[in-house]
Amino acid sequence: MSASRIERALGETAEAVTDCLDRLLPAPDGPEGRVAEAMRYAALSDGKRLRPFLLVTSTGLFGVSGEPALRAAAAVEMIHAYSLVHDDLPAMDDDDLRRGRPACHIQFDEATAILAGDALLTFAFEVLTDEATHGDGAVRCALARGLAVASGASGMVGGQMVDLLAAEHDLDLDGVTHLQNLKTGALIAFSCEGGAILGGASAEQRDALSAYGRDLGLAFQIADDLLDVESTAAQLGKAVGKDADAGKATFVSLLGVAGARDYASELVARAISRLELFDGRADLLADVARFVIDRRH
Amino acid sequence: MSASRIERALGETAEAVTDCLDRLLPAPDGPEGRVAEAMRYAALSDGKRLRPFLLVTSTGLFGVSGEPALRAAAAVEMIHAYSLVHDDLPAMDDDDLRRGRPACHIQFDEATAILAGDALLTFAFEVLTDEATHGDGAVRCALARGLAVASGASGMVGGQMVDLLAAEHDLDLDGVTHLQNLKTGALIAFSCEGGAILGGASAEQRDALSAYGRDLGLAFQIADDLLDVESTAAQLGKAVGKDADAGKATFVSLLGVAGARDYASELVARAISRLELFDGRADLLADVARFVIDRRH
Repeated sequence: MSASRIERALGETAEAVTDCLDRLLPAPDGPEGRVAEAMRYAALSDGKRLRPFLLVTSTGLFGVSGEPALRAAAAVEMIHAYSLVHDDLPAMDDDDLRRGRPACHIQFDEATAILAGDALLTFAFEVLTDEATHGDGAVRCALARGLAVASGASGMVGGQMVDLLAAEHDLDLDGVTHLQNLKTGALIAFSCEGGAILGGASAEQRDALSAYGRDLGLAFQIADDLLDVESTAAQLGKAVGKDADAGKATFVSLLGVAGARDYASELVARAISRLELFDGRADLLADVARFVIDRRH
Repeated sequence: MSASRIERALGETAEAVTDCLDRLLPAPDGPEGRVAEAMRYAALSDGKRLRPFLLVTSTGLFGVSGEPALRAAAAVEMIHAYSLVHDDLPAMDDDDLRRGRPACHIQFDEATAILAGDALLTFAFEVLTDEATHGDGAVRCALARGLAVASGASGMVGGQMVDLLAAEHDLDLDGVTHLQNLKTGALIAFSCEGGAILGGASAEQRDALSAYGRDLGLAFQIADDLLDVESTAAQLGKAVGKDADAGKATFVSLLGVAGARDYASELVARAISRLELFDGRADLLADVARFVIDRRH
């Protein structure tokens, strides 16, 4: 599939998920309305919506689509959006800009941003556990549990903790891999595994999608590191980006540009090999994996 | 039942729930261990554990006890603990002390406190959705959903948003009631309703326990307002506390000391009347309601 067809497929899912988020998120109402306003600001901003795409596409492998898949995808995006709001706070990464707009704590204020993040995180579980997501409570429960494990202290939050401490430590390749598996890999892997849960997959299919997601997540991060170096080089005339300035090891600083690119290709090949048991029905997931390391933004 | 017997019952449940939290919370391990350390610091500190007591006692009405009740109680306490960690942050209420110890962001740092709060919130859902909490996934799912609704933008987080904005608004009695129903009432009501869910109660019993919890939550808050004024008056020789200094309306500022005390008694009587359908088996809940407005700390 050509890159433009993949980009179109990504764009279509992004639009459907954004519509779903818009319908699900609370409307600002009453004296507490400010927090709903900030939740909407953070979650409805532009984004690639890679995680929702993976969830919707994985669910589609099992013939399940429509509202249930979009709701689960929206829940995953709420977690991603909350993590960006909290990561941008002055006490964390202190970023004023996010996706070309003022960060949530700049547009509103720090207290509102903290609360909006908390509320988005909580709302993801409210959405997943609602009957409209799946008729079987045990399936809804499995989704909520998978999301909690991927997002918590042994997943995304743990990864952000390691990242904050990374400048003080000399992380080697294992250390950076561990950091990124937690910080971005766990939620990306859950996006794929969640589709298997929602679609009623076998344990083997579920494990395969989860493994695909783990490999893809790491490849995605390496591609990010490469873009950081290369777009900085092109635009600012220097060879290193923000992580390097902060003294943090990255895949590129540890492996070099060519080495990192090779490793990403290897991971993508491995990710695609995980999909063999779907007999070609998962070609879209294979294509998106190739796209992720070839993208230019 | 005498106050000392209620205090003993509270103390016994507090100890059992603290033990359960200690077993459930992740041990500090790996480079992300700092966040687990901060979670434990925040959740294992001393506290009345009123919410866990309500959950365990409500569950007991249906003959259910032991690990399932303790786990659900621990999950509710994790939500309460996370809310205190985030509320204490400099951008929020800016409190350095909590339960007689340095607040989490003082003991660790702001970034770690934000992450520990996020992780505690997430972990509450991980615990509730685990098979060890209940054998039926639909029951676990209902618990998780109830907790999410009580804790989010239309519940506890919404209440904190209203509270932060309260100094800028002249809240009347309806306004303060709305604030407190969200900020403390929703989670206290869920603590009672959660027992009904876990115990397999009828819809009528569940509604009764939830209504009891709502009335009790408001009475509890009024008692807090009264303690704020009276302990300040006794200790500092002035008649007003922190909320009044911040220009925030409270039940006491709106109704006066005697009026607030009358209103709390009325709410407790109403809370107790909600328990009639349990034919005397819920006397412990009635007693704790009376205790809540008579307590001295």
